Amino acid sequence: MRLNTQQIEALDKRYRALFINALSGFKSANLIATCDNSKNTNLAIFTSVFHIGSSPPLLGMISRPHSVPRHTLENILQTGHYSINHVNESIIKQAHQTSARYDEEISEFQATGLSEQWDDDFPAPLVEQSRIQLGMKLREHHQLAINNTVMIIGEITHINIKDDVVHQDGYVDIERAGSIATSSLDSYHRTDLLSHLSYAKPEKMPEQITERKK
Amino acid sequence: MRLNTQQIEALDKRYRALFINALSGFKSANLIATCDNSKNTNLAIFTSVFHIGSSPPLLGMISRPHSVPRHTLENILQTGHYSINHVNESIIKQAHQTSARYDEEISEFQATGLSEQWDDDFPAPLVEQSRIQLGMKLREHHQLAINNTVMIIGEITHINIKDDVVHQDGYVDIERAGSIATSSLDSYHRTDLLSHLSYAKPEKMPEQITERKK
Repeated sequence: MRLNTQQIEALDKRYRALFINALSGFKSANLIATCDNSKNTNLAIFTSVFHIGSSPPLLGMISRPHSVPRHTLENILQTGHYSINHVNESIIKQAHQTSARYDEEISEFQATGLSEQWDDDFPAPLVEQSRIQLGMKLREHHQLAINNTVMIIGEITHINIKDDVVHQDGYVDIERAGSIATSSLDSYHRTDLLSHLSYAKPEKMPEQITERKK
Repeated sequence: MRLNTQQIEALDKRYRALFINALSGFKSANLIATCDNSKNTNLAIFTSVFHIGSSPPLLGMISRPHSVPRHTLENILQTGHYSINHVNESIIKQAHQTSARYDEEISEFQATGLSEQWDDDFPAPLVEQSRIQLGMKLREHHQLAINNTVMIIGEITHINIKDDVVHQDGYVDIERAGSIATSSLDSYHRTDLLSHLSYAKPEKMPEQITERKK
């Protein structure tokens, strides 16, 4: 299949959404948990969380302007905090269900059966069933003129993670933690490690790292 | 393991890089192919390509300011075009090797053994060994004040993809195309489909889509 701009524009709207959403490659799956100033909670799946930098530790994500994650965006702007929680294999259906268009007064926690976790030192809820939980502080947000989506940039201020998936060198085995990958709009995949590769240098091809100590 | 901002800041630099880079979840792996105005080519792996919108079809990616992908950024700004090519299982080592710090006059195509493909109607090279190739036109770029990385936003203007991975409804089976997922800085994973889930509605939990016709 070869498509150019005119042919892409001519695609049926639903077909194009499934099709184009697959083209960036595999995506993360995270539950974004928020609350408003009255502690009414909200939960929404995002597949657009991406790494921006490790020092300071920054993650970005894209919020659509007039669709499902709008309550999430409003809460983040109101409180300045949110949490990012990895979706694992045992909560895929509940996570996917958070994308339904619930009314604002309904919390997706109650609607899907996922549990709120409140840590003493963090002002937004976390998802108890998630094995990798990140407490985030809003740092910047930008409305992209090109299509009115909003890019949210946050700093990781709290990390809750099981010790047994963190290796001596800092590598976090998210596969062992059960985190899953997504593709397009509706598909969930488990992963299977192919290789860790050594730091690339011009003079020789990378080698497989066979031992990674815990 | 529980870490707060002070404890994250205190981590050893290399440890922190491996650690923080894992926290966004699984990532895409794409080879960004570019050339300068004299058609000198460059090739670099990026794991930060993310979906921004399907109409117009937009993808974003993050370029570090003073490190490996700098030649990529310069070429994109010079020519206004680049290509995004999915990494598949058979080219993982070559793809990883493009992250070595080669001198500017060396093309990572020659250095790694990957092949340039030039389509008549697109001004930047594609990667012949890639099964999903996207021709991109630069639309916006923003330097993020927060850490000086550069966000590049491009529009998909050309798509080359094998017919046998595109389903009737528009879903692209990138797993079948051999595309892989990455985690942290050095790890490559194949995927295994768990489920396609139906469009989420408030009144009932999502169901598994068992038939997806090609």
